[in-house]
Amino acid sequence: MMKWLNKLLSTPSTDPLATALSSILGFTPENTQFYHQAFCHSSIEEPKYGDNERLEFLGDSILDSVITEYLYHKLPTKDEGVLTDIRSKMVSRHTLNKLAKEFKIDEFIQTNLGGKIPVSVFGNAFEALIAAIYLDKGEPFCRNFIISKIIKKYFSLETLEKEISSYKKHFIHWTQKTNKSFSFELQSETGESHNKSFQMALVLEGSEISKATASSKKKAEEATAKIACESLKI
Amino acid sequence: MMKWLNKLLSTPSTDPLATALSSILGFTPENTQFYHQAFCHSSIEEPKYGDNERLEFLGDSILDSVITEYLYHKLPTKDEGVLTDIRSKMVSRHTLNKLAKEFKIDEFIQTNLGGKIPVSVFGNAFEALIAAIYLDKGEPFCRNFIISKIIKKYFSLETLEKEISSYKKHFIHWTQKTNKSFSFELQSETGESHNKSFQMALVLEGSEISKATASSKKKAEEATAKIACESLKI
Repeated sequence: MMKWLNKLLSTPSTDPLATALSSILGFTPENTQFYHQAFCHSSIEEPKYGDNERLEFLGDSILDSVITEYLYHKLPTKDEGVLTDIRSKMVSRHTLNKLAKEFKIDEFIQTNLGGKIPVSVFGNAFEALIAAIYLDKGEPFCRNFIISKIIKKYFSLETLEKEISSYKKHFIHWTQKTNKSFSFELQSETGESHNKSFQMALVLEGSEISKATASSKKKAEEATAKIACESLKI
Repeated sequence: MMKWLNKLLSTPSTDPLATALSSILGFTPENTQFYHQAFCHSSIEEPKYGDNERLEFLGDSILDSVITEYLYHKLPTKDEGVLTDIRSKMVSRHTLNKLAKEFKIDEFIQTNLGGKIPVSVFGNAFEALIAAIYLDKGEPFCRNFIISKIIKKYFSLETLEKEISSYKKHFIHWTQKTNKSFSFELQSETGESHNKSFQMALVLEGSEISKATASSKKKAEEATAKIACESLKI
């Protein structure tokens, strides 16, 4: 769809890609070759500006570091376990694919994959786009773009905090930090083989502090850890 | 050993930590509270400046992003698979622990662990030190420190490139990029159960391109992939 663009000389004023992107990004790209590269999947043979895999490698790291520093400063009372969990959610494949949709990557991407383009192709191109902005406009501009146009626009730290990905992980981390002993104990296993029910208890320093029942040991552990984290306010 | 330092008011001119660090880092720290925090393990109870876990979270990301950008620019012809492998080696636990030794972290670290301090405590504190430099002196200074005092001093990209961690991974990545079919095929399995020998062949687009024998399937695959990568110059 965008192949004809590549045939044009890509100077900022004449490259239609710069115009098309400016309404989405909120600024006009200058060195458009980086953006052409960011939208070029590795299935394209002999691309004029190269494919986007090296840019994806760079963009992934830039996004991660800007988000890390942002969380470090914005959540000064949260320990690194919580910060790590929040960051994981913000840079997950799922999130990147959603952001790619917001930034209309599907309208710009060039592939040779036919009609069936895996959604990860868009998420990867979104990371490459971050690198293109970094190389085109420099570090402070790109950092500001990530904070104002991505983090502040699409994430709520409050919501993310409430959705900590693994309460078990969070609980174990807390026991290591506070040097407390704990164990997850299977109290009962009931039901037929395809419809089992497991009751797990969480024992902290010899005392049972929570218990939960679920369809797998793993789910019951997670549920009991969640109850414990909430009652201990950790 | 350094506990008495914490009792002193930490202004740059009077804090002995600033003087002690200046000969190791090559500059004089200004806001020494960040460095006190970087050297404070979480086993210390109620530390004056907090422990180093949040700084480790930040430092890990800073180190990763500076190394990523450095490799991106320094190795413009290498694909992201090679860049990822080289970066993995540069930021591995093993490497961080070695760097911690070079920067004499063991002389500064404060812990409540007794005599048996796991070596990872030093590597983690090294990452925290990176964050302390970043917060004390700012992003451009810290980036320059990482490039000149860590990367250029302790790493050879040429050597790292030669030691790509997994030839199998590298080979598979290349087949995906070039859209070629391949398979690893077990040709023979000989010897007693505790002394087995596996011969694996690597078949590319229907033709056997290499074979190797080793004590496990995994090792034989790696060995045959290495031969293939070298003969294909990939």
